[in-house]
Amino acid sequence: MEQGKLFTETSNKVITCRAAIAWTTNAPLSIEKVEVDPPKAGEVRIKIISSGICGTDKHILEGKDKVPLPAILGHEGAGIVESIGEGVTSVKPGDKVLMFPLPECRECSSCLHPTGNFCLKESILPPTGLMLDGTSRFTCRGRKIYHLYGTSTFTEYTVVHEIAVGKIDDDAPMDTVCILSCEVPTGFGAVFNIAKVTPGSTCVVFGLGGIGSAVIMACKASGASRIIGVDIKEEKFPRARALGVTDCLNPQKLKKPVQEVVVEMTGKGADFAFEAIGLIDTMVATLESCHPSYGVAVIIGLAPTNSQLIFDPTLLLSGRTLKGGALGNYKTRSCIPKMVTDYLQKKINIDPLITHKLPFESINKAFELLQGGHCIRCVLFLRPR
Amino acid sequence: MEQGKLFTETSNKVITCRAAIAWTTNAPLSIEKVEVDPPKAGEVRIKIISSGICGTDKHILEGKDKVPLPAILGHEGAGIVESIGEGVTSVKPGDKVLMFPLPECRECSSCLHPTGNFCLKESILPPTGLMLDGTSRFTCRGRKIYHLYGTSTFTEYTVVHEIAVGKIDDDAPMDTVCILSCEVPTGFGAVFNIAKVTPGSTCVVFGLGGIGSAVIMACKASGASRIIGVDIKEEKFPRARALGVTDCLNPQKLKKPVQEVVVEMTGKGADFAFEAIGLIDTMVATLESCHPSYGVAVIIGLAPTNSQLIFDPTLLLSGRTLKGGALGNYKTRSCIPKMVTDYLQKKINIDPLITHKLPFESINKAFELLQGGHCIRCVLFLRPR
Ligand SMILES: NC(=O)c1ccc[n+]([C@@H]2O[C@H](COP(=O)([O-])OP(=O)(O)OC[C@H]3O[C@@H](n4cnc5c(N)ncnc54)[C@H](O)[C@@H]3O)[C@@H](O)[C@H]2O)c1
Ligand SMILES: NC(=O)c1ccc[n+]([C@@H]2O[C@H](COP(=O)([O-])OP(=O)(O)OC[C@H]3O[C@@H](n4cnc5c(N)ncnc54)[C@H](O)[C@@H]3O)[C@@H](O)[C@H]2O)c1
Ligand SMILES: [Zn+2]
Ligand SMILES: [Zn+2]
Ligand SMILES: [Zn+2]
Ligand SMILES: [Zn+2]
Repeated sequence: MEQGKLFTETSNKVITCRAAIAWTTNAPLSIEKVEVDPPKAGEVRIKIISSGICGTDKHILEGKDKVPLPAILGHEGAGIVESIGEGVTSVKPGDKVLMFPLPECRECSSCLHPTGNFCLKESILPPTGLMLDGTSRFTCRGRKIYHLYGTSTFTEYTVVHEIAVGKIDDDAPMDTVCILSCEVPTGFGAVFNIAKVTPGSTCVVFGLGGIGSAVIMACKASGASRIIGVDIKEEKFPRARALGVTDCLNPQKLKKPVQEVVVEMTGKGADFAFEAIGLIDTMVATLESCHPSYGVAVIIGLAPTNSQLIFDPTLLLSGRTLKGGALGNYKTRSCIPKMVTDYLQKKINIDPLITHKLPFESINKAFELLQGGHCIRCVLFLRPR
Repeated sequence: MEQGKLFTETSNKVITCRAAIAWTTNAPLSIEKVEVDPPKAGEVRIKIISSGICGTDKHILEGKDKVPLPAILGHEGAGIVESIGEGVTSVKPGDKVLMFPLPECRECSSCLHPTGNFCLKESILPPTGLMLDGTSRFTCRGRKIYHLYGTSTFTEYTVVHEIAVGKIDDDAPMDTVCILSCEVPTGFGAVFNIAKVTPGSTCVVFGLGGIGSAVIMACKASGASRIIGVDIKEEKFPRARALGVTDCLNPQKLKKPVQEVVVEMTGKGADFAFEAIGLIDTMVATLESCHPSYGVAVIIGLAPTNSQLIFDPTLLLSGRTLKGGALGNYKTRSCIPKMVTDYLQKKINIDPLITHKLPFESINKAFELLQGGHCIRCVLFLRPR
């Protein structure tokens, strides 16, 4: 408490900096001057060093996933604490941190549950675009600008709740570890925590982008003996194979539905199936691709806002399991900073999950790369390297 | 093999006996003379002693779940082996047995999997109404009569594949243990095998009929601290309370959807939710009733043929698990005969799951009891007691 107060002075000033504003969907982001308010009680103002661009940001910009606009997007950030609001005790100015689209309040029923991670203080379902007090910390051209999932990382400074911030090792390479804010735990956790892939099993991964690639690495690490990768961009196949995929399928080149092909290839269905695209049709295909009796289908992709999953419930009657999860079911603050340490100690490898690094100014170029299917993750660096 | 051949002589004769024929849906069953063919290779002819009437039989008769007709329904039977076909080695004439709607061939990928039970030799999805060789063993008035799920127990004699028959203890009370062919494992296994209910948890059970009652008993045995029961027939409430339900809800008397009430009662949602009715709407309500982050919803009810489950996939994104399963995921031949022994040794109690016992002739009366919501299980006895 006292420590928190020490810094309230420095955090009383509005910071003016550059941020990429999404004024509307299906238009380039516009880099503009924004005012970033000081952090309120329980909040942290962070100087962003680097940010990944996630498929979710892409879906939002395409209008598929609706969030309040104008907003500062981005939710995969690494930065340095600039100032802290009253009562903040877990981080202090100068700390290197990651910020998470899913907080961990350690007080709600999710946080207190041994395996739950969907903290009830989240602002994803529905996306409010606001801090927990119902207001925003960003202003641009006199207009209030919305946050994204309590993070907003496409900016030189952002304000995040302390419960969504994790202190990381001082020697963490910021333009790499930023992807530990979403891509890595989402993919790894889908395999380790949600599906619990077993050695010798057969897995199928729909979507070989950033999340799908992380899923493949984790399936391989879990000892899966066969990993079938599905994507419509064959450009993704060589890298997927390098990560562990044994068979690549392009649904657009098949004579029958891809799930039927997977069922034939595997005898009767895969042990584990992952959806890392975000389309209703591929979610159902994922469920149908797994074994009727013991198959586990994990939906990672974010479906378009207000869409409905529609399938015959007898798909479940035979014994299938259908699961979903955010951030791979990791309790963010408790688990993710340890993954940074694991990375530094070479216990996990995340390097293959980044294919491009571009300066912040090239953010629209980065989105084009993602939309064109030409990158796995493109990381933006907001400070000269 | 030699032993099998010993009995092929006695099993060469067609048996004429009484059976209840479902000529069409939404009409009383008609007790008629039928001819029952001798068992072919790998088959067993069984003299039925008793049979439960399951909600599935009710749905079939109501035309909700479509199966080929005319048929002999019933799939919850206990009987005595009358004769065996070539190659049958696991049972012999005179053995007391249960017959299961789900076989266990011990050769297919489901059977060989450590937890799978949906043997690929099943005839449920879709219901073929035939033996595995594509023919029927029943004839009535010169017409071939279909089987149900390879069982057909509303008859004095039936023919079942050896892989769907389990030898049980000689001193098993037949007019009680018949419900171990479906009701008991379905409900118990949904809790013990599929949901894996934990001590101190909160459970909600949609449907307080036969299956729901077995679910309640197992939730209680698992140490659930709160069990919310949901049914539109309040007649079901006193018994449900006696079995362990702590709160009863009648959706028709609530001002808001029952799932909202459950969510309010439990803070944010139940740990475990079970659907034991067989309606699309209550399946979605079941999913919505469980905790967004760690809730597990188990669909036991059989949805109407060709119906579609429709829900917003963000229900899964937060971390919910949606599962289904037949016969509680028990490997039938390997597990259920042991449950008979457990019952005889008073390790499990199944008596409260039977409320009525009626002679075979009263089968239509028994269906009326079930349709009116006036019984839990009504067992038919086919032989004088
Ligand atoms: N649950 C979570 O916590 C979480 C976290 C991050 C991302 N996501 C979601 O995961 C999904 C994937 O994100 P990403 O960052 O990997 O995106 P991405 O764009 O890198 O990857 C998506 C891949 O899907 C492929 N694809 C598109 N349509 C396809 C189709 N019809 N059939 C086969 N492949 C197709 C694309 O070619 C691409 O390779 C998105 O829906 C995103 O919103 C969820
Ligand atoms: N998965 C399996 O292996 C398996 C096995 C057996 C039965 N089943 C299915 O389980 C379901 C239940 O079977 P049962 O034998 O218990 O039947 P049942 O008739 O004994 O019980 C059904 C209960 O649901 C109640 N109900 C009906 N409509 C309702 C509604 N709208 N809201 C709340 N309650 C409602 C009824 O009053 C009744 O108490 C059926 O769908 C059956 O087909 C599945
Ligand atoms: Zn993301
Ligand atoms: Zn929380
Ligand atoms: Zn049944
Ligand atoms: Zn089998």
